[in-house]
Amino acid sequence: MKKNEIPYKIYLSEEEMPRSWYNVRADMKNKPAPLLNPQTFKPITEEELERVFCKDLVQQELNETDRHIPIPQEILDFYKMYRPAPLTRAYCLEKKLQTPAKIYYKFEGNNTSGSHKLNSAIAQAYYAKKQGLKGVTTETGAGQWGTALAMACAYLDLDCIVYQVKCSYEQKPFRREVIRTYGAQVIPSPSDTTSVGRKILQEFPGTGGSLGCAISEAVETAVSREGYRYVLGSVLSQVLLHQSIIGLEAKLAMDKYNIVPDIIIGCAGGGSNLGGLISPFMGEKLRGERDYRFIAVEPASCPSLTRGVFAYDYCDTGKVCPLQKMYTLGSGFMPSANHAGGLRYHGMSAILSQLYHDGYMEARSVEQTEVFQAAQLFARTEGTLPAPESSHAIKAAIDEALRCKETGEEKTILFGLTGTGYFDMKAYESFNNGTMTDYIPTDEEIKKGTDGIPRFEGNNF
Amino acid sequence: MKKNEIPYKIYLSEEEMPRSWYNVRADMKNKPAPLLNPQTFKPITEEELERVFCKDLVQQELNETDRHIPIPQEILDFYKMYRPAPLTRAYCLEKKLQTPAKIYYKFEGNNTSGSHKLNSAIAQAYYAKKQGLKGVTTETGAGQWGTALAMACAYLDLDCIVYQVKCSYEQKPFRREVIRTYGAQVIPSPSDTTSVGRKILQEFPGTGGSLGCAISEAVETAVSREGYRYVLGSVLSQVLLHQSIIGLEAKLAMDKYNIVPDIIIGCAGGGSNLGGLISPFMGEKLRGERDYRFIAVEPASCPSLTRGVFAYDYCDTGKVCPLQKMYTLGSGFMPSANHAGGLRYHGMSAILSQLYHDGYMEARSVEQTEVFQAAQLFARTEGTLPAPESSHAIKAAIDEALRCKETGEEKTILFGLTGTGYFDMKAYESFNNGTMTDYIPTDEEIKKGTDGIPRFEGNNF
Repeated sequence: MKKNEIPYKIYLSEEEMPRSWYNVRADMKNKPAPLLNPQTFKPITEEELERVFCKDLVQQELNETDRHIPIPQEILDFYKMYRPAPLTRAYCLEKKLQTPAKIYYKFEGNNTSGSHKLNSAIAQAYYAKKQGLKGVTTETGAGQWGTALAMACAYLDLDCIVYQVKCSYEQKPFRREVIRTYGAQVIPSPSDTTSVGRKILQEFPGTGGSLGCAISEAVETAVSREGYRYVLGSVLSQVLLHQSIIGLEAKLAMDKYNIVPDIIIGCAGGGSNLGGLISPFMGEKLRGERDYRFIAVEPASCPSLTRGVFAYDYCDTGKVCPLQKMYTLGSGFMPSANHAGGLRYHGMSAILSQLYHDGYMEARSVEQTEVFQAAQLFARTEGTLPAPESSHAIKAAIDEALRCKETGEEKTILFGLTGTGYFDMKAYESFNNGTMTDYIPTDEEIKKGTDGIPRFEGNNF
Repeated sequence: MKKNEIPYKIYLSEEEMPRSWYNVRADMKNKPAPLLNPQTFKPITEEELERVFCKDLVQQELNETDRHIPIPQEILDFYKMYRPAPLTRAYCLEKKLQTPAKIYYKFEGNNTSGSHKLNSAIAQAYYAKKQGLKGVTTETGAGQWGTALAMACAYLDLDCIVYQVKCSYEQKPFRREVIRTYGAQVIPSPSDTTSVGRKILQEFPGTGGSLGCAISEAVETAVSREGYRYVLGSVLSQVLLHQSIIGLEAKLAMDKYNIVPDIIIGCAGGGSNLGGLISPFMGEKLRGERDYRFIAVEPASCPSLTRGVFAYDYCDTGKVCPLQKMYTLGSGFMPSANHAGGLRYHGMSAILSQLYHDGYMEARSVEQTEVFQAAQLFARTEGTLPAPESSHAIKAAIDEALRCKETGEEKTILFGLTGTGYFDMKAYESFNNGTMTDYIPTDEEIKKGTDGIPRFEGNNF
């Protein structure tokens, strides 16, 4: 390496790793609106939240003032098993694109969960263990979050019950087996282990289930079993807090080499990765210290930021979870069946929604075949086979780099490579075979979804 | 981190990365016996080898004297995309086992091929490109080697044709799709693209194919097409040379912290990982500078070192490749159908065979259910879901660590974690369900296999 040359990968040493999470809400003038009780539409109380979530996590969920929250040593030790994640300079992609732009990505796929989800899973499992609980429950679709939680619970010797959407359970048996290898119980949802599951099975025998139903079963199990709580892998402000480790590491790695990104790009589903990646940079922008462009990239088939409304809505289709004020397509919105690329959540993190609403962030939507084209190009030049979710960010990063090629600007682009696509080969297969299609919801479909958002005092949109 | 404490993971910086491969043959008093022409049983000539393999690779295959062979800059650049691979201290496993032993592993699964195979794939593809060839052909079973080669060829813009054993092609579609995503052509073998394939299809319509047949098709395609050569992912001495990067990095990382391993353990199929990992340490032992214990771990169902004979045998079941002197079960030997754990090659690298024959290395065999038990324990404590192949080494490392617990010895153990098990979930599923079984071949089955080894002058065993 020549002097001052940027290496392909920048690793922090263990001493350099962040020891606190960063709470971006502390720097926001307009805080996210409070969560509402789904029955009363009144701000939810600490006590009500503690029936569902662990105490410490409720504190984190409600904490809008502490800028830095120390990471407990036990979590730091777990992080050391797979972190720091590398910040990688995409030299080969730059060369392929012949762009003057400098492209960096923060890679979070170097662990068996295959994504950044592990960062919050270990935190949530740790606080459950600390509270003396026996176990946690959750839902999972394709299985990344379920895998991450099972890994964290295996490490802490905590019971883990995962309700997996039945059609995923049956059609994607490999993630299920990973979860089982880590000792978690995987239950296809709807199931006869809960009253809500039994009711749905009676009404719709043979149904493949839905994420909404799986959430309802996981919550019911958590509140009805002694010593159990429910945990969630995205959307919540506590999750963004834990995921700030992504951005903090990226920023430290960049600072080491005096690299300042002009544009920071992340894919956006519920917002856990995007929020985590941009948080410390956003903090500088909110405090007026430095300006950055932030771009949220979402699938055209599930466009909550770009086509949704900013309103109070249920976080789950089952309407058992609190409401939060966010950009939403309506909790009944379901992306088209041909949608393969993840990021299928109807809403968006309250923090990110507020920041977007206040003009601190841009958003754009991309279609899935162009996303897989970007994924293929990335795989062939940079080696790593990306997750479909991550590939939304890749697509936008490539577009920005090509824009630099046109204008001759040497911009520095940072994007989040949230994970690997090793369990998404069915989607890659349809892309490889040329049978993948795109779908953009009609205005009518969007309207139908948002018409389901509850109308009540204070929900004017 | 406290001063002098060993971090969880030791990464080399780019400047510290090895710039030459290490050729252990230079330090061997008894060199591996020369390769033989499969028709004449005479030592094969350079010219004969060059019909099948690239020129530079033939030179490397025959080079017994140069201790260090510089790694071309283009390969170093590719290595930087996924190397250095971390050397990890297994703190959590040590704690779980309550052993005074210190356990380290060199992890080679941090890339999309999921294993160390990429180290040699990029080298072989590079020399093919350098020779001005259009493309390369190879065979693959489960697909790790095929994936690695496809990745390397995509990077270098080289055509890549992979003959995949038909039953794997059909039963394990996900690796096939990874290979296709990297732009390689995947052909189920036997196929109608070669005369040997057509002959087999005529004789055995509906056959699921075999690795032997796939090799024969790949070789036929390479020699009959203008501008193509055949490449192989294990067994050959050139492959061990490229894989020496594993051991060189491990040794540099250990030297940084003054760590000296007492025992070095690797799983053994064709020998590519084991040979690569131990090479630089073995060099010290051969030169009388330091003593180490080396342990090769093979499956009880395919026990070439522990139950095979040391003789000249065909490298492939199709008998089109050169013969080499090695520990072998006979080129017709097939592990039992219940065998899930990889490492199903009938023979062993000539270098490793000679070293084992000369008493520089130990070997042991392990059964697959105990291997998966070790894999599960490792996954739950250290996080990473290991490949079944790698888990053979994990099993032996755990056994040695438990022995230290009995004796109270604080030995330092290093093992090779060759890859991840993300595409092996069928095997994990049968383990999770308790339906996995073991099989140890009878003496009669071993005799039947070795009876097929050619009898000719100079092949006394």
